Amino acid sequence: MSERETYTVEVAGLTRHLPLFEVAPGVRIAIFNMLGDTHVVKGAAAVLAEKLAHIEADVLVTAEAKSIPLIYEMSALMGLPYVVLRKGYKSYMGEAISAETESITTGHKQTLYLDEKDQQYIRGKRVVIVDDVISTGSTLLGMENVIVTAEGKTVAIAAVFTEGDADWSNIIALRNLPVFLD
Amino acid sequence: MSERETYTVEVAGLTRHLPLFEVAPGVRIAIFNMLGDTHVVKGAAAVLAEKLAHIEADVLVTAEAKSIPLIYEMSALMGLPYVVLRKGYKSYMGEAISAETESITTGHKQTLYLDEKDQQYIRGKRVVIVDDVISTGSTLLGMENVIVTAEGKTVAIAAVFTEGDADWSNIIALRNLPVFLD
Repeated sequence: MSERETYTVEVAGLTRHLPLFEVAPGVRIAIFNMLGDTHVVKGAAAVLAEKLAHIEADVLVTAEAKSIPLIYEMSALMGLPYVVLRKGYKSYMGEAISAETESITTGHKQTLYLDEKDQQYIRGKRVVIVDDVISTGSTLLGMENVIVTAEGKTVAIAAVFTEGDADWSNIIALRNLPVFLD
Repeated sequence: MSERETYTVEVAGLTRHLPLFEVAPGVRIAIFNMLGDTHVVKGAAAVLAEKLAHIEADVLVTAEAKSIPLIYEMSALMGLPYVVLRKGYKSYMGEAISAETESITTGHKQTLYLDEKDQQYIRGKRVVIVDDVISTGSTLLGMENVIVTAEGKTVAIAAVFTEGDADWSNIIALRNLPVFLD
């Protein structure tokens, strides 16, 4: 199959053609990148904000970088603060809390860091985790571990897409993306 | 001087107390982090969009990660697409264009990458570079190099803050931050 092949999907009333990308021999995923797509961010944020409206929450949390516009827009719509877990440590982050995770698109381990200044937004708070795509669940687990260490309580998990055929009944999402097996 | 000392600054009508951080012996800078500060992002984006209104431009460009909410908000206000240069290469980025830069807060060299899919937004286009703080100009130079390689033309440079007493007359900014020398 050609590398240029795409998977067409509808997101919040908008149509997008996601390029397929081989992540392992015979296994391809559809690449969804909201960075730069202001219309999709606005639309998906509105739908997720409405789906989350019945949940009492104090703060939104994501991991950098592709989901940052989404969580920013959801923060503005929902009137909640948000925290971005970083993928690199900088010394101005002080005594950061960290957890390891593994990326499906790079295959490498990476570490998530919670800046010391942001820990006050999570300690004792009700947290909604936000992500663009939840697939292997590795980044999700890393975020959950950081939140537990920071003494927050995850009350909901929201994503634009889940991916693959695991049990995603605990995730609030717009839609599921298939994984493509040759 | 205490590490907890702060520098108080006004941004788009909002007051913020920026923590001071030592980046070299006897040299401290004020740390400005818009990630998570939705009010400052909304306000600064509105001011910069107005300051840029007289400039004919096709696209906004920044580097990840702290400026992403700012460029997203400016994109929505100005009706322009935006591109985020990434600090790590992922294989889905294809034949990316890259340039080296050096961070004042980490002291390390880093590489900026322009995803192959985003090069169409820069080739032959009028580009406004956007950043949160322009200080040593190293990240700025890296962005300019990527834009030249991608055959775009930088028509304006916008930042929330310039920093230090270099000649910043070519930067459209809200304000200058001092560098603190003991």
